[in-house]
Amino acid sequence: MVPRMPNEHARPAASPRDDASLPVARAPSHAERCRTLVAEARSATLCTIARDPAGYPYGSLVTVAVDAVGRPLFLLSELAEHTGNLAGRSDASALLTEPLGTHDQPLALGRVTLLGRCAKVDASELPAARGAFLAHQPSASYYVDFKDFAFYRLEPEALRYVGGFGRMSWVTPDDYRAAEPDPLRGAAPGILAHMNADHADASLAYARVLAGVPDATSATMTAVDRYGFDLAVITPAGPRAARVAFDAPLTTSDEVRRTMVALVKRARG
Amino acid sequence: MVPRMPNEHARPAASPRDDASLPVARAPSHAERCRTLVAEARSATLCTIARDPAGYPYGSLVTVAVDAVGRPLFLLSELAEHTGNLAGRSDASALLTEPLGTHDQPLALGRVTLLGRCAKVDASELPAARGAFLAHQPSASYYVDFKDFAFYRLEPEALRYVGGFGRMSWVTPDDYRAAEPDPLRGAAPGILAHMNADHADASLAYARVLAGVPDATSATMTAVDRYGFDLAVITPAGPRAARVAFDAPLTTSDEVRRTMVALVKRARG
Repeated sequence: MVPRMPNEHARPAASPRDDASLPVARAPSHAERCRTLVAEARSATLCTIARDPAGYPYGSLVTVAVDAVGRPLFLLSELAEHTGNLAGRSDASALLTEPLGTHDQPLALGRVTLLGRCAKVDASELPAARGAFLAHQPSASYYVDFKDFAFYRLEPEALRYVGGFGRMSWVTPDDYRAAEPDPLRGAAPGILAHMNADHADASLAYARVLAGVPDATSATMTAVDRYGFDLAVITPAGPRAARVAFDAPLTTSDEVRRTMVALVKRARG
Repeated sequence: MVPRMPNEHARPAASPRDDASLPVARAPSHAERCRTLVAEARSATLCTIARDPAGYPYGSLVTVAVDAVGRPLFLLSELAEHTGNLAGRSDASALLTEPLGTHDQPLALGRVTLLGRCAKVDASELPAARGAFLAHQPSASYYVDFKDFAFYRLEPEALRYVGGFGRMSWVTPDDYRAAEPDPLRGAAPGILAHMNADHADASLAYARVLAGVPDATSATMTAVDRYGFDLAVITPAGPRAARVAFDAPLTTSDEVRRTMVALVKRARG
């Protein structure tokens, strides 16, 4: 038996669908997933090149925000190792990971590594960087004006996305910049909690009828985005993943609520 | 007013003590804190040198365990980027961070960066590495025998410890290797939960009498280790940190329980 978890390689990219007449459910692109992940993250690992011991890659914990086109922003102390490293060499990367949340398995988490040069933000761009950073990291207001702190920005030249088990790819900077963070990212945790607490029967109906898993015995909603939602489905043959697409992309939790009601009516036909 | 948080630089290394006659409470060394942190961590950022774009430091998420002398162990897929990077250059680091736990502030977390060469574990040492890894990461048993997975070990040449705000230093590999992980690390979360739920009055007595904060109005236990415990104390002048040392190092939660009882009797005179 092929283990379902946590093998990135033996697991098929998509679960087989029992009803081949169903279209493949649209899902966010990897570029969109990267933009969403970076928009949500509050901390990151900043990787720089160490001065001593020279040449080693040096990972350190930083807080992070993002500018309007997806570039990570950092507020760094001139006294910190990573800042000294960047003064010597601006080559850097930032690893941003989904919050641990409900996953017990760290390797199930989505994450992105953005590689590029990381340099001080120019004076002309400081007001925008400062505004974006403080909006995302309000507690930084306590030290944002200290003389030894300065804003840095990473210019992505390459991005590596890993979407948990079995989904990974390089994303180009152009695709990344053109993608939009998911408009439901802030509402998603509340939607999932509500659906799983109060509407497990609806999720089961979605799984059986709309996701092509007629023998589903239970279903839990694990993700929701503008294009649809993911279900973790239990069947007599074992657990499997499934997805249901919305008819059109949604942008607000109110639209999601109305759509979920319409979908359950459709499922119960 | 100097902000208490989150400024690593303006904050004094130790809080002033109202009662100068009290000895400085012994606390774990930075080497000991590093060993404890590495013993506890379940995931890490592995930093390698990218092949393409060449020369950039590359951060990726990995699961981690530790061998008997504190060296991080990884179980890596030959298909993963970081593994290809290591084949080109073994220079690496690993960033391990305390679990987010009760801290809302990521920068308040303790963390350590271990820098050194990361290479495949020799065949002669594989059984020990495998045993240590699976004991700490039982779910890895699902893929440990897959042909494309192999054990890697990082040999620390330098360690950078950052203990939240205001505590940081380089730790030598010799000091790190000689240090022992805290024997109470597994019991600490339970001890803290119990003391804060049921014995807030005791913590207040410790703060007022044993930690030299006579005007304390409340106290929360924030850490416990073999040498003593930390308190977050509220006073009319504002919040402050305090520490109480045990008379001798402790190794079990049972010893801690008896000692806490004895200390509260001492505090109440």
